[in-house]
Amino acid sequence: MAEVDTARFLADLHELRQIGKFKTGVHRPTYTPEDMQSRHWLMDRLREVGLTPSMDGIGNVIGRHPGPGPHLLVGSHLETQNEAGWLDGALGVLAGLALARAGLPVDVVAFADEEGHYGTFLGSRSLIGDVTEAQMDAAKHNMTGKPLREALREAGLESLPRERLDPSRYKGFFELHIEQGTQLENAGLRSGVVTGIVGIRYFKITAIGQQDHTGGTTMAERKDAAVAAMRVLSLIDERFPMHIGERTVWTCGRIMLEPNAPHIIPGKAELVFQFRDISEEVMDRLEELLHRIVQEVGRRDRCTLSVECLNRSPPALAHPAMHEALRQAATKHANGQWQPMPSGAIHDAQQMAKILPTAMLFTPSIGGISHHWAEDTKEEDLTLALRILADAAENYLKQ
Amino acid sequence: MAEVDTARFLADLHELRQIGKFKTGVHRPTYTPEDMQSRHWLMDRLREVGLTPSMDGIGNVIGRHPGPGPHLLVGSHLETQNEAGWLDGALGVLAGLALARAGLPVDVVAFADEEGHYGTFLGSRSLIGDVTEAQMDAAKHNMTGKPLREALREAGLESLPRERLDPSRYKGFFELHIEQGTQLENAGLRSGVVTGIVGIRYFKITAIGQQDHTGGTTMAERKDAAVAAMRVLSLIDERFPMHIGERTVWTCGRIMLEPNAPHIIPGKAELVFQFRDISEEVMDRLEELLHRIVQEVGRRDRCTLSVECLNRSPPALAHPAMHEALRQAATKHANGQWQPMPSGAIHDAQQMAKILPTAMLFTPSIGGISHHWAEDTKEEDLTLALRILADAAENYLKQ
Repeated sequence: MAEVDTARFLADLHELRQIGKFKTGVHRPTYTPEDMQSRHWLMDRLREVGLTPSMDGIGNVIGRHPGPGPHLLVGSHLETQNEAGWLDGALGVLAGLALARAGLPVDVVAFADEEGHYGTFLGSRSLIGDVTEAQMDAAKHNMTGKPLREALREAGLESLPRERLDPSRYKGFFELHIEQGTQLENAGLRSGVVTGIVGIRYFKITAIGQQDHTGGTTMAERKDAAVAAMRVLSLIDERFPMHIGERTVWTCGRIMLEPNAPHIIPGKAELVFQFRDISEEVMDRLEELLHRIVQEVGRRDRCTLSVECLNRSPPALAHPAMHEALRQAATKHANGQWQPMPSGAIHDAQQMAKILPTAMLFTPSIGGISHHWAEDTKEEDLTLALRILADAAENYLKQ
Repeated sequence: MAEVDTARFLADLHELRQIGKFKTGVHRPTYTPEDMQSRHWLMDRLREVGLTPSMDGIGNVIGRHPGPGPHLLVGSHLETQNEAGWLDGALGVLAGLALARAGLPVDVVAFADEEGHYGTFLGSRSLIGDVTEAQMDAAKHNMTGKPLREALREAGLESLPRERLDPSRYKGFFELHIEQGTQLENAGLRSGVVTGIVGIRYFKITAIGQQDHTGGTTMAERKDAAVAAMRVLSLIDERFPMHIGERTVWTCGRIMLEPNAPHIIPGKAELVFQFRDISEEVMDRLEELLHRIVQEVGRRDRCTLSVECLNRSPPALAHPAMHEALRQAATKHANGQWQPMPSGAIHDAQQMAKILPTAMLFTPSIGGISHHWAEDTKEEDLTLALRILADAAENYLKQ
């Protein structure tokens, strides 16, 4: 059995934590000097364990195992949200490094921009051939609007080619990640074997009413877009629970009123609404329900309502044999202390699942904190996860 | 009977419309060059009709009748909202000018900043002694934050004293204004005799929840501040109609979520909510109801809710004798074509009502449009209003 060096694994995590250190977390947004420093640091580590490192034209780092296959691909991402946690992404990459160090035939990958500063899964999608040059031209930073091309030039990546993964090289892709929730902690468990990554559907719901003076317009005359938006959310709150799956979540995270002024009846309201589930069937049902709710509110509230689907990402179920290998390894190392569970968050694994057998493993997040510098996981849970992953990888390779 | 020159009245309105012209409306925000130009233009007109004009240290323009009393004060305001209508405010000031031209013992007033660019009724409140120097020091532009003192310096008003009205000089204050609603138009009427100006109560409702990742946090664990805010608005929508007066209006014009990002469960939501009614008793009842609703949502939605009252302006009922004089004049000039009605919008008249008998008259707003350059009123309705106002003023002065 492969012997993983858990002490070295933790030491690597703590060393990487120094790059872009922010309080107890890190600040390494994509293509910033700190992010690029972490990628070069990783390439040195990959070389140390005998892998052949390379960085491609969008910042993906891959360390290739020099020996014969079958190979596994193991990794996650290095960049972070602003002032975020030290483990999100880094954990999965350094777990891959630890497996390679233990002698397993593993290629290690650090996907660029999983955190979406410039788009959606640009790095992993590029590796599976799902990003065109036109999309590269159009991509911009989601806050500053800086073009992706400009960021790549500044990071010294402009002249490098973008790589494409060869699926025939790999028997599968494993990703270890923090849970980013409190399911494991609340259940008193130490590990989660991911059954699948939820799909997400995003919608923009727009209500057009009539902007008017709040004093001069009677209630009977009003076409208040905010009232229509409120009614949509209220009906969602009332009806969705009767049509959901076991772990469906739905959220309106963004509301924009126009003109959003205390004295003026809003003439326009825009909601960004999303739901997530592991089942396409459940999501189809909810999308249908959403359309009916919006139609009903349009009928009642004298506003013109519309729904636009901004994005549909399909659920990605874990590969049965890889999932089973993780379950057996979890039972061996932590019997009674783990559970199967869906991933409510999205991950590069769902891109890899389009071309490779894929499975994920979760470690608990203390207090469920994620995308914040206070994010953390107990060291004994980190090393447990590494042992489960190594065992599962070794056994799956033998099949 | 006083003979008003309606042609000259319309000509004056059209001449004033050229100052700060924007499409078919005007752009004369308080203390801008266009606003100051309109004040100086008015002073010239006041002089022409034999009044003694003066401008005070906050921009109020008064034209004083040189003859013996009893006098009436008649006027409104000259500055406008951004890119707003040509009649809002200007109509009432030039109606006063027309009455003075007809020989009535009228002082004409143009209150500064009724539109609230730097505060709430700063001009009219200053004239009744309700603005301290400390409040002058603290006042800032509501968008740019420019200090009032700086704006006054730039407008050349800094060294002028602020005037104070002598209530003993006046038998009352009349204000003619556009309706800013569609009550008159929808009823096919040409004039509205205002029974009173509604009171307004403003509230900031804050919900504090827990900011979390939308994917990793189950519905059962969530403390979604946007859901709590939605529930408050939903319960208001459901409960308020059972407790209101005949013309109560209520509005949430402003919603702020934090961080207002599609992927993140809102940790904080802030609503600005207001209601308006002519009765303090109704408003007390609604304020009590609002507190109960917020309390109930706090109990149900796992968020911490609070209500802060930002402002309470009391309703101002029309002075009975002045109101009656307007009714009789309206019946004489437009029998069957007018109605008594409350003012849903706030006006300088409610400040004047604190020291003087006060009444208001409305002309229709075409399509109810207000605070927009498309605002307009038929010329025959404008001249009708002037005739009603002149008759009412003359008859009230005789009492």
